[in-house]
Amino acid sequence: MKKLCNAVDKILRESLQGLGAAHADILTVSLDPMLVTRGTKKDAGKVALISGGGSGHEPLHAGFVGAGMLDAACPGEVFTSPTPDQMMAAASAVSGAGGCLFIVKNYSGDVMNFEMAAEMADGEIATVITNDDVAVEDSTYTQGRRGVAGTIVVEKIVGAAAENGADLAACKALGERVNAATGSMGIALSSCTVPAAGKPTFDLGDNQLELGVGIHGEPGRERIDMASADELAATMFEAIHESVQTAAGQRVLLFINGMGGTPLMELYLMYHAVDKLCQQRGLEVARSLVGNYCTSLEMQGCSVTMTALDDEMVQLWDAPVRTAALRW
Amino acid sequence: MKKLCNAVDKILRESLQGLGAAHADILTVSLDPMLVTRGTKKDAGKVALISGGGSGHEPLHAGFVGAGMLDAACPGEVFTSPTPDQMMAAASAVSGAGGCLFIVKNYSGDVMNFEMAAEMADGEIATVITNDDVAVEDSTYTQGRRGVAGTIVVEKIVGAAAENGADLAACKALGERVNAATGSMGIALSSCTVPAAGKPTFDLGDNQLELGVGIHGEPGRERIDMASADELAATMFEAIHESVQTAAGQRVLLFINGMGGTPLMELYLMYHAVDKLCQQRGLEVARSLVGNYCTSLEMQGCSVTMTALDDEMVQLWDAPVRTAALRW
Repeated sequence: MKKLCNAVDKILRESLQGLGAAHADILTVSLDPMLVTRGTKKDAGKVALISGGGSGHEPLHAGFVGAGMLDAACPGEVFTSPTPDQMMAAASAVSGAGGCLFIVKNYSGDVMNFEMAAEMADGEIATVITNDDVAVEDSTYTQGRRGVAGTIVVEKIVGAAAENGADLAACKALGERVNAATGSMGIALSSCTVPAAGKPTFDLGDNQLELGVGIHGEPGRERIDMASADELAATMFEAIHESVQTAAGQRVLLFINGMGGTPLMELYLMYHAVDKLCQQRGLEVARSLVGNYCTSLEMQGCSVTMTALDDEMVQLWDAPVRTAALRW
Repeated sequence: MKKLCNAVDKILRESLQGLGAAHADILTVSLDPMLVTRGTKKDAGKVALISGGGSGHEPLHAGFVGAGMLDAACPGEVFTSPTPDQMMAAASAVSGAGGCLFIVKNYSGDVMNFEMAAEMADGEIATVITNDDVAVEDSTYTQGRRGVAGTIVVEKIVGAAAENGADLAACKALGERVNAATGSMGIALSSCTVPAAGKPTFDLGDNQLELGVGIHGEPGRERIDMASADELAATMFEAIHESVQTAAGQRVLLFINGMGGTPLMELYLMYHAVDKLCQQRGLEVARSLVGNYCTSLEMQGCSVTMTALDDEMVQLWDAPVRTAALRW
């Protein structure tokens, strides 16, 4: 295993210290418990948005803390849920009279720990669980569908609504609406290596890929031989399309997400491939995002996410955002 | 070789089509000759900034086309210089009475082709050659030092000056000043695979890394055993520090660049490691950049870039920028 690190058990801590130092104008890092919050004073009336999950998916979630998006993120160890004390500390640090919305990817550990924190924390807390991954029902760490890159779309759109003064019930309803309008599917061309494990999570043959892979390397629908970008795009597009039903004329957000080890050149090529399919179906690709946003360490591969947009979502997507990983 | 593509000879073209579709609000892609220009009407009086080079380093350079940075980028085939006709077409498309500044990374093919274009094109053209890589003098494709990630610092700062109305001579002088104030050094933990070659550019042992690697996989200073992040940071920091002489109290930009296949978690960890060294030397890290900006396809590794900043450079670095890859 080759990693840029000093010691496996210090990777997360030292990485967070770097994040905090590099973006001191946007966020503040606390190490005990591990927590990333906005550097600015909290607005007591605003709904506070808190997310979190296992590390190894950077920039998710800490890279999305800042004006127009999250108020705090709780990073767990690599591919391991954060603990309720982190979430309670986050809620205590950033939420006020407006209450607090937990945005939680659907993994059993995350869901359980965020639930415990919601029960124990003071103040009003609501939760949105994201489950945009259309690849499989139930998985290694999940009952039901997994939450993956589409979580970022939820965080961006609800983040803008919270900034505009939407109350807790409205933020929760909007988050659930965006999640329902969103579908994702991923492929892996290589495994990732969890630092503490020291070896690849799974083995793939020289000509194989995992179709529908999870962001922790969980199995997908099937292991297939390498196929062309157009073929892979069509398979993912159809699976998403089946879940997020769109009619001709529907505006969509098209988001090509890199798993961490795939050149940007290939991600744009995949964007082109899926964009062509959208055009063939009469979908209007109204907004786009291309890059490494919800990664699986150094895994090679990508995921496709599509959200069926309405007017409100478009406006909120376009609203200003100032985070380490997303800024406009 | 596993790549997300349809055919090796169409990768660049299809990737550029994706780039153009995803960022139609920022840039326009032409395929014959291959060219990425700002989507907005040109301002005849403004100095036009044009860069380019072999593809495979994305988002460099096309990702930096837009307000506050480049006016056009000429993408060559993977790791291959663009041709003079691309540069002449770019100059014709975006330059007016203000003239045109070529920003060229120091590789023999790039330098020669940009020189030919400058001779043949109409209008006033000046050139800045970047050579920030302190690792080695002369290399596989280079006489003198190589131009690498520091080129982005030159493009950002000169881009802001051009936007503010600086004339051609001032832009050239500023570009040369920023280049002289900038040093970089990179390491590779794995090779990249050029699509047309179909196999890794070089072989590295399971416990080896290439210290001072070039962005095309050119050899660096030496091949060494894996070392800790702190040790690697110290080696790169010292080499840069020797070249970009800084005294205590000097403000610097610290830029940790991913080579394409390294998790962001590790890049922030490297930021932390170099930031500590800066503090020990009394340097003030006044600005920062962390991410995959000057890549080598899917190579694992990173580079460290430092620029000794003055007041003018800080102001120009902070000026608004709106490109696919850099926006604030």
